[in-house]
Amino acid sequence: MRALDLIGIGAGDPRHLTLQAVEALGRLDLVVLIDKRAETAELTRMREAILDRFASPRLKRLHLDDPPRRREGDYAANVEAWHTARAELLEDALRRHLQDGQRAALLAWGEPTLFDSALRLIKTIEARAGMQLEVEVIPGISSIQTLAARHRIPLNRINEPVHITTGRKLAEGFPPGLDAVLVMLDGDCTFLQVAEPGMEIFWGAYLGTEDEILIEGLVEEVGERIVELRSAARARKGWVMDTYLLRRR
Amino acid sequence: MRALDLIGIGAGDPRHLTLQAVEALGRLDLVVLIDKRAETAELTRMREAILDRFASPRLKRLHLDDPPRRREGDYAANVEAWHTARAELLEDALRRHLQDGQRAALLAWGEPTLFDSALRLIKTIEARAGMQLEVEVIPGISSIQTLAARHRIPLNRINEPVHITTGRKLAEGFPPGLDAVLVMLDGDCTFLQVAEPGMEIFWGAYLGTEDEILIEGLVEEVGERIVELRSAARARKGWVMDTYLLRRR
Repeated sequence: MRALDLIGIGAGDPRHLTLQAVEALGRLDLVVLIDKRAETAELTRMREAILDRFASPRLKRLHLDDPPRRREGDYAANVEAWHTARAELLEDALRRHLQDGQRAALLAWGEPTLFDSALRLIKTIEARAGMQLEVEVIPGISSIQTLAARHRIPLNRINEPVHITTGRKLAEGFPPGLDAVLVMLDGDCTFLQVAEPGMEIFWGAYLGTEDEILIEGLVEEVGERIVELRSAARARKGWVMDTYLLRRR
Repeated sequence: MRALDLIGIGAGDPRHLTLQAVEALGRLDLVVLIDKRAETAELTRMREAILDRFASPRLKRLHLDDPPRRREGDYAANVEAWHTARAELLEDALRRHLQDGQRAALLAWGEPTLFDSALRLIKTIEARAGMQLEVEVIPGISSIQTLAARHRIPLNRINEPVHITTGRKLAEGFPPGLDAVLVMLDGDCTFLQVAEPGMEIFWGAYLGTEDEILIEGLVEEVGERIVELRSAARARKGWVMDTYLLRRR
């Protein structure tokens, strides 16, 4: 039997690691790091710094290149093909590098069960014949939680649900029946397109890191400034991770 | 200047404390524990055990009785009255027991910005004249994250948003346009009323504790069993905290 942990490492602030994550990192034999093209040296360094601090010195760090993902054509089919390529890559890596009785891990930024494909990847590998895995999922603090903490706002007001979506879905329109929405994975500053007059935004980038930027206000007053700051920061650092709450006042 | 931390302590598993929460607990002078009537000795013990382990020996633990909350009549007005009574109680406690330059905290189960009134309480106190507070919010792992981790399921499927609501709101009907909903604070097992044939549930109680119960399956097959187990566990322990994911297959 081989063990595989899926460890949430928080959204950028290493102090957001849980005691459970620290404990898990300390007992690992192997960590499989799927290096995304969008990730720069800085993100890799942040992840390595966590391993340097909490993992055992005997830990083997295996870097794999994320398979390319087609952006043109059918979205669902492209995601599926990319997913299959990743599953094959990971299964092969575990077969080669993880012995019976050993423990491997994948690391996930934020919360590993929220807009993250790692769990689906693991299920795909489990479903293939011949690979028995003892899987443990270790929750992590998501960027959305860090956003709320840093702005010191509740995720939802009284009698409101919490609705978390993507920029891609928000582009279809502000969800009907709701007055507030949390948005992740929005590379297009979709709030500019969908915000009604009087809607306010609580935005944050590089949350929990020393480069953190926080902006709040009416979209009509701060929206353009967010776009400019985001674009400038991205040009300077080579990457950006941001999230926001958009709501009627 | 007085400092006030709002610390998320996770949903039951002490290993879900973050390093930031541990650090914060260690530097406190005062913790204000608002003892809810619904809480039993066991929940109080769980919280005290966290303080015993991580807080400084000089920590002063101040227990306040939660003001009574009317259940009959107008819901919003009752919540408002209860909220005002709590704010007065907490403000008075901070004035009496927290010196200038000292640091107090409130502890929140789960994530302190998610279906929790503590942050609103703090804002009310800040808005009153004469009380300057330096507030820090420390995120915590919510019961929903623990639910997903323990069932080893993603919070959302591909191209789906995450929608978190209450039993009270779910009783109005399954939210239109969605195929999945996460439910907290449901004392009435509302899934039995709103589930359509073929809907599945991933349910968990006492998540992250040694009494944890996990059930998954079609509502028509496991729904009644959840109701029975929940009711028996509540009778045995005097309290229950549970949450679930309800979705179309």
